[in-house]
Amino acid sequence: MKLKDLAARIGGAAIGDGETEILRLNTIEAAGPGDLTFIANPKYAARLDASRASAVIVKAVPAGQSRNFLVHDDPYYAVALALKLLCPAPGAQIQPGIAASARVDASAQIGSGVHIGEFVEIGADTRIGDGSRIMTGCVVGRNCRIGNDSQLYPHVVVYDECLIGSRVAIHAGTVVGSDGFGYATHAGVHHKVYQIGRVRIEDDVEIGANCTIDRGALNETVIGSGSKIDNLVQIAHNVRIGRGCIIVAQVGIAGSTVLGDYVVLGGQVGLVGHLEIGSGTRVSAQSGVTKSYSGGDYGGTPARPMREYREIEAHVHRLPQRMDELKRLKSEVEELRKQLAEMRRP
Amino acid sequence: MKLKDLAARIGGAAIGDGETEILRLNTIEAAGPGDLTFIANPKYAARLDASRASAVIVKAVPAGQSRNFLVHDDPYYAVALALKLLCPAPGAQIQPGIAASARVDASAQIGSGVHIGEFVEIGADTRIGDGSRIMTGCVVGRNCRIGNDSQLYPHVVVYDECLIGSRVAIHAGTVVGSDGFGYATHAGVHHKVYQIGRVRIEDDVEIGANCTIDRGALNETVIGSGSKIDNLVQIAHNVRIGRGCIIVAQVGIAGSTVLGDYVVLGGQVGLVGHLEIGSGTRVSAQSGVTKSYSGGDYGGTPARPMREYREIEAHVHRLPQRMDELKRLKSEVEELRKQLAEMRRP
Amino acid sequence: MKLKDLAARIGGAAIGDGETEILRLNTIEAAGPGDLTFIANPKYAARLDASRASAVIVKAVPAGQSRNFLVHDDPYYAVALALKLLCPAPGAQIQPGIAASARVDASAQIGSGVHIGEFVEIGADTRIGDGSRIMTGCVVGRNCRIGNDSQLYPHVVVYDECLIGSRVAIHAGTVVGSDGFGYATHAGVHHKVYQIGRVRIEDDVEIGANCTIDRGALNETVIGSGSKIDNLVQIAHNVRIGRGCIIVAQVGIAGSTVLGDYVVLGGQVGLVGHLEIGSGTRVSAQSGVTKSYSGGDYGGTPARPMREYREIEAHVHRLPQRMDELKRLKSEVEELRKQLAEMRRP
Repeated sequence: MKLKDLAARIGGAAIGDGETEILRLNTIEAAGPGDLTFIANPKYAARLDASRASAVIVKAVPAGQSRNFLVHDDPYYAVALALKLLCPAPGAQIQPGIAASARVDASAQIGSGVHIGEFVEIGADTRIGDGSRIMTGCVVGRNCRIGNDSQLYPHVVVYDECLIGSRVAIHAGTVVGSDGFGYATHAGVHHKVYQIGRVRIEDDVEIGANCTIDRGALNETVIGSGSKIDNLVQIAHNVRIGRGCIIVAQVGIAGSTVLGDYVVLGGQVGLVGHLEIGSGTRVSAQSGVTKSYSGGDYGGTPARPMREYREIEAHVHRLPQRMDELKRLKSEVEELRKQLAEMRRP
Repeated sequence: MKLKDLAARIGGAAIGDGETEILRLNTIEAAGPGDLTFIANPKYAARLDASRASAVIVKAVPAGQSRNFLVHDDPYYAVALALKLLCPAPGAQIQPGIAASARVDASAQIGSGVHIGEFVEIGADTRIGDGSRIMTGCVVGRNCRIGNDSQLYPHVVVYDECLIGSRVAIHAGTVVGSDGFGYATHAGVHHKVYQIGRVRIEDDVEIGANCTIDRGALNETVIGSGSKIDNLVQIAHNVRIGRGCIIVAQVGIAGSTVLGDYVVLGGQVGLVGHLEIGSGTRVSAQSGVTKSYSGGDYGGTPARPMREYREIEAHVHRLPQRMDELKRLKSEVEELRKQLAEMRRP
Repeated sequence: MKLKDLAARIGGAAIGDGETEILRLNTIEAAGPGDLTFIANPKYAARLDASRASAVIVKAVPAGQSRNFLVHDDPYYAVALALKLLCPAPGAQIQPGIAASARVDASAQIGSGVHIGEFVEIGADTRIGDGSRIMTGCVVGRNCRIGNDSQLYPHVVVYDECLIGSRVAIHAGTVVGSDGFGYATHAGVHHKVYQIGRVRIEDDVEIGANCTIDRGALNETVIGSGSKIDNLVQIAHNVRIGRGCIIVAQVGIAGSTVLGDYVVLGGQVGLVGHLEIGSGTRVSAQSGVTKSYSGGDYGGTPARPMREYREIEAHVHRLPQRMDELKRLKSEVEELRKQLAEMRRP
């Protein structure tokens, strides 16, 4: 695609030779002829000099540069749009049809244009919407619903009764609907509390690989529409995640905690159970959240408001010097006391 | 089931209309006619007013309430018992039989009433006890033993030689018996130390989804009877977990660490290797345990006795004020010193 | 094998009866006749008295001991070597051949002596080198390369286009090549940034169970030769890991971070994205690395040089006493001030 056409289609402006043919996206370092690259962060502009890219997506043309640019208000968004124009969509090469080895229950309802891969099992009464792709080795239990144009990568397991929306992507090895961790301990025995709820994943959600999303104890665990979850994340029973949340890898959310919309949890964050986390709340990586918060930025274990956390961290960092000062001050006070006592002596 | 009959069978007392028909359990908010709900924590009693539940499990009837109750000494245990009476047991709907696509080695011994699902592989000399359910896509290696009435959810992988007891449940994607992480580094090369031990999981254990339980280096990694393990937990080689332990999601236990009985580890806790953790020890979420402890509660990284941890945390929290005080004190002492020097001047 | 022969083959010396027949390795406690055991750490030498082992690998014969020893400069390396002589290599019992249920694309090129297990799928244009073992239920996508003598344990998923070297072992449930976590948020919508790169795993790498290794956004995620990765580890897109690194369980490395050679990351460590971690850097368990470092030991969240971290931790540990001292000092200064004021009174 010509640079000028690409720019027009993604709402940017071509600077330089708009006729330049763009074949693919690449990194600044690896790009060569035919490659479009990008600078999302102006501090990397110096790397441009050495780049052999045919054109560069930027927010503004750096001073003194005379190469081809695609100027866009939101460079990273421009990258996303350019990739959509230049590359096939994930799963686009997967052909509709049901593999010979797949075991699809006779009562299951499979939409049109659906792909059911090898060694897949689809349980009784389950419905799969048009255009969805259930890849090799997936197991979808009984009475599940999967919407349209969703993609389950290989070896995803969906337990009975779970609901998955449209345009949902779930990466390999993720388990949806496993039992929540509920036991009633009585006379030294941990009695299992049957987990009879389900999981409901709304539209446009993407979930990474090898995550675990437990079913509700009595009703639902919910992942709200447009939320994105990274790899190896644990979502416990009854958790409700709002719309547009971003949950980075290895986060764990304990039972019955509720997140509002657009909550951002950094990698390896943990949330205890029964919290209410308001919309827009952001938690930095590895923090441990033990209280409910309604918006704002938090960090540390136990998590505190980010400004407070940073202030405390700075003090902790200076503790060795401060404790030396305290020690010296003790000596000084002792010395003053002696002098004073001497002066008061009759 | 009538409320009065249910109460009688679980050792509680029906208050109000004992003839009320109870069909299922539900949450306070979602419950409607036919639903039994519960208040395990009296602080939620206020929510009762708005509930449409037909009856409520409580420890004691709240003042001024005139609806149907099921009074039980241990409400959460009562919930567990009621669910067992009103709902089918997990796996109850799974039919005995060996799926056509399953590959069961001719030398394997399969008990009566066993379910072997689609795309399952059972290795040579492996024995599976009566009533166990090996669900879709599980792989059980050579010379393994699985007891009676155990359930392996889809895609569980059990490596060769591992032992699993009776009434054990292992959720989807969990790996039992993978190699421990053992290398002898010599002249810059990490030489693999063959892991020739096994895993032994005792009776009545439940293990969550996508966990990893490594085989012993030379002998056994052990999960003691009645212990319950949540999702995404890592158990390293030679670890020995006692009876009745509770291990919450994303915990990691390093090699050769030994837990006594009824140890409780909160979510994302890490234990270094070669520790001995006594029976009844409890560790709060995200803590990092670096020493052996014999009972008691611990928190923090490195973990300390809980009282000490809380005291230190409180001091850390107040560091900004205290360090201000220290600064002011320095000025005051400096001022006093000046005054004193002035007075001593001849 | 006779003790003297074993000693000769692994570069050690037999002390005592070199004719003693050695059948296997075992722990000090469990060893019996025919068993060789070892003491890698001299502090465990006291346990020797009770051991029934036929011989013991040691660095030096403990004083006053008169049993059979195999003396070796590097006892743990000697254990690794002895195991290689006495036990079959991992996967040695797996027979070459393609299982009847496997689905191997007609365009795939399968080397000689390759094992393709039951329910395996191999995609178009993929090449698998001589002697490699692709165990039950693995899914290898299109246009992948796997070298010689590598082993994929059951249910490993390799997405399209990924490269895996020779003598690589990947344990069950690990996912290689899943999409990196990349979204461009525009007008409240998280737009997926297609992940069009790949994963390249070099020779002699071992990866544990249920790990996730994301493909590069535009080019490669790399695991360098001889590096060893434990279970449940998350490697994000564009990460580059050097040679000989050791990455313990549940570590998470965020996007575009680069590790040099022989970096050691303890369990549950997290690294934020876009860091450069120099060769030989070591990070203690549960630490959170937020800055680039070039070698040395680090600990804590945020991670600091280990000496500094330990010093700060010691001060934090003593905060209760120090803050008591601060309080007393305040009283003393107040008292001195009063005395001084009194003396200055005319």
